[in-house]
Amino acid sequence: MPTEVRALAMASATAPFERITITRRDPLPDEVVIDIKYAGICHSDIHTARGEWGEVIYPLVPGHEIAGVITAVGPEVTKFKVGDHAGIGCFVDACGKCKHCLMGEENACLERTIWTYNDIGWDGVPTAGGYSQQIVARADYVLKIPETIPLAAAAPLLCAGVTPWSPLVRYHAGPGTKLAVVGLGGLGHMAVQLGHALGCETTVISRTLRKKAAGIALGADHYYATEDPDTFEELAETFDLMICTISADLDVNALVSLLRLGGVLVFLGLPPDDQHFKIEPLCFGHKSITGSDIGGIPGTQAVLDFCAAKGISAKVEVISADEVTEAYNKVVAGIPQFRYVIDIATL
Amino acid sequence: MPTEVRALAMASATAPFERITITRRDPLPDEVVIDIKYAGICHSDIHTARGEWGEVIYPLVPGHEIAGVITAVGPEVTKFKVGDHAGIGCFVDACGKCKHCLMGEENACLERTIWTYNDIGWDGVPTAGGYSQQIVARADYVLKIPETIPLAAAAPLLCAGVTPWSPLVRYHAGPGTKLAVVGLGGLGHMAVQLGHALGCETTVISRTLRKKAAGIALGADHYYATEDPDTFEELAETFDLMICTISADLDVNALVSLLRLGGVLVFLGLPPDDQHFKIEPLCFGHKSITGSDIGGIPGTQAVLDFCAAKGISAKVEVISADEVTEAYNKVVAGIPQFRYVIDIATL
Repeated sequence: MPTEVRALAMASATAPFERITITRRDPLPDEVVIDIKYAGICHSDIHTARGEWGEVIYPLVPGHEIAGVITAVGPEVTKFKVGDHAGIGCFVDACGKCKHCLMGEENACLERTIWTYNDIGWDGVPTAGGYSQQIVARADYVLKIPETIPLAAAAPLLCAGVTPWSPLVRYHAGPGTKLAVVGLGGLGHMAVQLGHALGCETTVISRTLRKKAAGIALGADHYYATEDPDTFEELAETFDLMICTISADLDVNALVSLLRLGGVLVFLGLPPDDQHFKIEPLCFGHKSITGSDIGGIPGTQAVLDFCAAKGISAKVEVISADEVTEAYNKVVAGIPQFRYVIDIATL
Repeated sequence: MPTEVRALAMASATAPFERITITRRDPLPDEVVIDIKYAGICHSDIHTARGEWGEVIYPLVPGHEIAGVITAVGPEVTKFKVGDHAGIGCFVDACGKCKHCLMGEENACLERTIWTYNDIGWDGVPTAGGYSQQIVARADYVLKIPETIPLAAAAPLLCAGVTPWSPLVRYHAGPGTKLAVVGLGGLGHMAVQLGHALGCETTVISRTLRKKAAGIALGADHYYATEDPDTFEELAETFDLMICTISADLDVNALVSLLRLGGVLVFLGLPPDDQHFKIEPLCFGHKSITGSDIGGIPGTQAVLDFCAAKGISAKVEVISADEVTEAYNKVVAGIPQFRYVIDIATL
């Protein structure tokens, strides 16, 4: 029998969050039910909810950094049992059969990736995300959260963890890699921890030195401010891999100038406008500009397992359901140090 | 005793070519002397000679697609003997000891790559390129030209061959790779032949269908015109690797839209101005924009050997020394089908 649960929703692009009731279906034979304990607030929740990334299905229940406990499993499910810690990231389903799904890139399913919120599920019902008490999904698209990671600190790994993880793995970051992380927010603070744990020589490049102590504590070997005019000269031709987490307009040529031979500049943030760059510096030194979004299920599980093995997790500030509207404004203003996570018990 | 040889030089950015006499040193113990038989005309010869790429040492003797016959070897040289076919590309020396040189990327020597022309050699004398009867260089920087490749058709391989070869190898082009070659000039006609011989499914994308028959004859499987508005729709999300040989301003977003998941767009041409692009399409599908210049000595030897093994060479139109001034105008106007090569016997 479908279950009514409480959720936090925005009724329009400018409305505050309010508690509503949503219905979660009974699990199908291959599905599980998760009692959500914590949901991270990702900047893309805000972009989506405010209509900045296209059409929105209101009322919208955001949240794609979901951590909780399994409370029911369908009869075909062998991956989970009741009581297991589990998580859901940015998507809840995909075809599972196309070339991309078989490559473990279900987030780029050629049939259709079903996003955790602001999408329509296979049952025709709008999807609702993690700012709610419960979620039901196919076990194949649910991640195992290792017991050693506190659930609140695990939630952001489902998006802010896997997003930098994907390019770190794709470009073989490890001992000998000179890594730069540009921007030290939700994504950046995970990129630093992951890069350091992988063995990279890790440099944070931020606008100011305001978060320097925190960056060094996360594992950064060096910390530079872009407001210092010497930074770009000192770091010229230095990095094998640069992970840029900034969503503002960028000086692409200046960033490229910090890459060494064969270096790769990866954008994780999404500046809204066209950026401009010279092709010549890419040619001499075969440097690359690329982007990356989240990751598929195998990559997301890998980052959770890696974090458990290395004792890494997100640095979070737990807030109550009543604080979410204000938290959105604070995230846009750059106030939280790294990540807000909603305590779903306050719903 | 230094040798006086004839050469073709430009006295200024706007002067016609004229015959001059230059002096080539006696070979040092590790050097060889090459009697030049053919020299290709590369578009970068023109950019350099006309002062479009910065300062020029006049009189300038261009030419970095050099094919000839060894006529003398220093006592330490074991790689060559008199009578061997040999070639020189874009550079004649490098430190040989730095990280890049040891990686076989002597064209990015951290000490100093000495370019074949418009540079100063280790002896303090301006370097002079292939539009001349003879050249002297360290054997380590001279390539072996397989006897099965006619020297005229081999000359362009030293630049127009290795330039597309480098990204084809770097990005593992082979059976299963969907390759696009954008532009079918000197670089493009080599990219098509090399890509086809490596086993790629090869598509030419050109402004018009004017060279379609030639492109298919070179091994292209498909041929599309950008002037056809349907091209970008038909080819959306198709290519693993795109090699763009165009030096004009580009619609980078349109080219990126033709890449599939993880696809790479490589620029070989050098549009002079900043280009612009959106970051978002790079993120969703982790597509890359990169560039590439020539290649090092191992790569250049590899492409020569590969061409010999596959029966490939440049498609050339042999011209006399008296035609070079006019040939420059024709290259800029896009008149030659693929590559002009100067018959040095006419000097």
